[in-house]
Amino acid sequence: MYTGIGASAGIGIGSVVIVKEPSLAYDNVTVSDIAAEKERFNNALEKCIAKTQAMAEDMKTRVGAKEAEILEGHVLLLMDPEMTGQINANIENEKMCAEAAVEQVCDMYAQMFSSIEDEMFQQRATDVCDIKTRLLKILLDVEDLDLASVPEGTVLVAEDLTPSMTAGINPANVAGVLTEIGGKTSHSAILARALEIPAVLSIEGIVSKLENGQTVILDGSTGEVFASPDEELLKKYTAKREEYLAEKAALQAFIGKESATADGHVVELCANIGKPEDAEKVVECDGEGIGLFRTEFLFMDRPQVPTEDEQFEAYKKVAEMLKGKPVIIRTLDIGGDKEIPYLGLAKEENPFLGFRAVRLCLKREDLYRPQLRALLRASAYGEIKIMVPMISCVDEFRAVKAMLEEIKAELDEKGIPYNKDIKVGIMVETPAASLMADAFAKEADFFSIGTNDLTGYTMAADRGNPDVAYLYSTYNPAVLRSIERVIKAGKAEGTMVGMCGEAAADPLLTPLLLSFGLDEFSVSATSILATRKTISLWTMEEANAVAEKAMSLVTEAEVKAYLESVAK
Amino acid sequence: MYTGIGASAGIGIGSVVIVKEPSLAYDNVTVSDIAAEKERFNNALEKCIAKTQAMAEDMKTRVGAKEAEILEGHVLLLMDPEMTGQINANIENEKMCAEAAVEQVCDMYAQMFSSIEDEMFQQRATDVCDIKTRLLKILLDVEDLDLASVPEGTVLVAEDLTPSMTAGINPANVAGVLTEIGGKTSHSAILARALEIPAVLSIEGIVSKLENGQTVILDGSTGEVFASPDEELLKKYTAKREEYLAEKAALQAFIGKESATADGHVVELCANIGKPEDAEKVVECDGEGIGLFRTEFLFMDRPQVPTEDEQFEAYKKVAEMLKGKPVIIRTLDIGGDKEIPYLGLAKEENPFLGFRAVRLCLKREDLYRPQLRALLRASAYGEIKIMVPMISCVDEFRAVKAMLEEIKAELDEKGIPYNKDIKVGIMVETPAASLMADAFAKEADFFSIGTNDLTGYTMAADRGNPDVAYLYSTYNPAVLRSIERVIKAGKAEGTMVGMCGEAAADPLLTPLLLSFGLDEFSVSATSILATRKTISLWTMEEANAVAEKAMSLVTEAEVKAYLESVAK
Repeated sequence: MYTGIGASAGIGIGSVVIVKEPSLAYDNVTVSDIAAEKERFNNALEKCIAKTQAMAEDMKTRVGAKEAEILEGHVLLLMDPEMTGQINANIENEKMCAEAAVEQVCDMYAQMFSSIEDEMFQQRATDVCDIKTRLLKILLDVEDLDLASVPEGTVLVAEDLTPSMTAGINPANVAGVLTEIGGKTSHSAILARALEIPAVLSIEGIVSKLENGQTVILDGSTGEVFASPDEELLKKYTAKREEYLAEKAALQAFIGKESATADGHVVELCANIGKPEDAEKVVECDGEGIGLFRTEFLFMDRPQVPTEDEQFEAYKKVAEMLKGKPVIIRTLDIGGDKEIPYLGLAKEENPFLGFRAVRLCLKREDLYRPQLRALLRASAYGEIKIMVPMISCVDEFRAVKAMLEEIKAELDEKGIPYNKDIKVGIMVETPAASLMADAFAKEADFFSIGTNDLTGYTMAADRGNPDVAYLYSTYNPAVLRSIERVIKAGKAEGTMVGMCGEAAADPLLTPLLLSFGLDEFSVSATSILATRKTISLWTMEEANAVAEKAMSLVTEAEVKAYLESVAK
Repeated sequence: MYTGIGASAGIGIGSVVIVKEPSLAYDNVTVSDIAAEKERFNNALEKCIAKTQAMAEDMKTRVGAKEAEILEGHVLLLMDPEMTGQINANIENEKMCAEAAVEQVCDMYAQMFSSIEDEMFQQRATDVCDIKTRLLKILLDVEDLDLASVPEGTVLVAEDLTPSMTAGINPANVAGVLTEIGGKTSHSAILARALEIPAVLSIEGIVSKLENGQTVILDGSTGEVFASPDEELLKKYTAKREEYLAEKAALQAFIGKESATADGHVVELCANIGKPEDAEKVVECDGEGIGLFRTEFLFMDRPQVPTEDEQFEAYKKVAEMLKGKPVIIRTLDIGGDKEIPYLGLAKEENPFLGFRAVRLCLKREDLYRPQLRALLRASAYGEIKIMVPMISCVDEFRAVKAMLEEIKAELDEKGIPYNKDIKVGIMVETPAASLMADAFAKEADFFSIGTNDLTGYTMAADRGNPDVAYLYSTYNPAVLRSIERVIKAGKAEGTMVGMCGEAAADPLLTPLLLSFGLDEFSVSATSILATRKTISLWTMEEANAVAEKAMSLVTEAEVKAYLESVAK
């Protein structure tokens, strides 16, 4: 048995598929049979063109014509006799192997394009790099791992699952996820929960311990993993799996009910989403709104900044799907662990303490203004609220509000409709914002507590670093005090206080959050019904008693043990 | 004129010396004249032996016989016919150039040694790497930049000054320091202030803008730098320099006086030091104790962990020099920006949020127990107090105290003397420790607020990152609130509260710290008298009024402007 961090509940039983980023190393040999090498290249080129055409077709059907355009551009580039001519010349004159010839020419083109300060040329440079990688993979016979097409009953096993690797995952075929790194709040964890795939993370060396095709059982609640289970174990866990799914089905009874405590204290129960399409799931799970729409995904896994219109369409789509229910959209939160290659941000010593989110947006108005404009325009189509992440001083928030006022004036001038009373709030996720919550409550229309980052900054512990994992816990009394202060400071000014971090869905914390006075819980769509159920099990009197006792404890272990002892 | 961050006050006038880390790149050519290449190597070897012997001699005179032993070991290794024989064989048989031959053999030895899990062999691996570098420098004719021997009137100009580069600086010869990176709390800044060398940091591209030998003027207060000044400017700044030095001399009147406000409220005024020898300066400047003895320097710039006895001697020396005055010694605070190569710590994504200081020490008892033992033993010779850095939860502090109790029992058993009432306190530098200050006040004998890290963590801003420098300021109301809470929580339990961060010496903050009730100010030795003077200018009533007003403001700019307007 292996153990790791149970990061997405459920029992997974299936067949191992090891996921590895392929290496593109090659021996840089001098070629003797030039004709054969040229043929090798030209065969690869043909394959590459065919493949890119197929990708473009697939993109057009699955996503849209606009997204396919880039790939169609690649096809044209691959057919460009100038570039392929130079590669052939390299093989012929310099006796380069095909790989080296491709790399040298593509790098030269990429450098040439990227030296021109123009968005179109920068895009061209990215295109050439994409093409280079695709050609090298074909020449080296390195298979493109396509997670979209793994067979049913697959358990994905990887060192880590990056956002780009997981983009194509089809939850119907993936029975489980096992990784060597990542914790409960890592991307892999969040994604697995969103797709309802059981996942166990941070299992030391699991990639080298399992083999493709091997049967494994994983328990996403306990973090246990069994390789090559015997029949008895298989039977036991198949039953467990059924039981788990039955319990989940029972939660359906909470659809259509109010989110209220046993004694009738009503709260708002919303969901966090990452893509416009996720909103469907929220509606399906009876979410009362969107508490956090992360807009980073609109900017990631693509070669360029989305235009204002593209953003407008995405925001409008979600607003319309929610039919007047609130939709809190967070402005761009890049930097930290979220890199966007085409923005060319500098590598930082401590990215989590660096130039990210609103810090960057305030200096990159070319990025920020189109987003704010798109948000304002979309606000005419639903109950959109704007949320600013990573605020650490009042000045930053004032600067954003000033920018919004300027854009509103522009829209007024052109007669473009928007919600003139649009609410603008902040994520409370830095210790500074927590300390100044009373001041912020006077300036912000709402708060949303981001417990993931707030925990990390408060404990000065990187959530991705296993050596300090013992500190990264929201049950730390310091973190709970910070949360309590934010909620109470917000309430004192009549500012709505929500929570969109992981803690909002943690049943152990529910009585505390109720007692502190949290107005809105924003959880993953799949946690809405379970959270509604947990809330319904408490009276405010009970919750207050639990909070009073819990807040008198001084260690994380005491708090956690106490909350477990009173959990419903 | 160039401008940067004035990081160490004073006027510097002198001649530029550009400091560059030499490159050790070489062309890996195939050698044709083997005899000549072997001669090249053997000449370099001779030079290297002579040089290492001279270094050992110098180390023996300047530092001590023990420290010289490592270098003497290098001489023996260089004379080892086995190793040199293999290098010669590489040149002869493989036609390698001398550089490649040296590198290949040394790397092989280093790898061999380092694969054996034994401290002695690990040290041997480090030795071989040192020798390799020294040999390559001689072969490549790369001069070892010796900052100890720059001529009088030198202005050092560098991208950055690392702790190892600055180890040998002689303040008598260095008129100023200019760097491209670093802020007021960077190592270069702290060092420059300790050595009373005027310094301007973070001047964009200054290394390529100045030339060796060029005359420059720098003003370490305003951050202004003038290259090739005309006679008039030179005259003006020479006068300014005199004036500055005269004012400094006038501070001498504060020697022997109590550190007290105008109305007689007495505080303790101590100093921060990095090396045992720095204690002399503290005594000279009339410090009332050591508020922070950083022990990292005992572990840095050397190839191995100092032994318990070496540490004991260092701690005892300081305790004795201070003659019964308090000496707060901080246990090892490595990690973050302080790397120690021989510990082989993993590179982290966010080192400031990582495995550093007490987090590491609690898991590396092999490092920590000898230090705690050395501290306890030295406590028999003066008023030593132990301070634990980077505490973020009560459990960590309890674990350190438990370890101390175990070591005390060992010492009791062996009849080794130590102070049975030794005080053990914590650095308050994480938001979590600040939030839990009331709980810590019940468990710690004293607090010392580390404003540098507390500011960084509170604002979630890396102090070394220029893109977020606008956030890294102790004048932020959030940071001031955190400081106020810590001081008041300590006072409420009768726990002594000191401050050893940069803010303790900031005259703008003096009235606030007095009003909050800070017991102990720990500043650089060179700031003692100026701080004593500033304290003497305030009455508690005035300080309270200033604090009340300042704490009602919500932006950093307002706070700073207000404090400037009332500064004395």
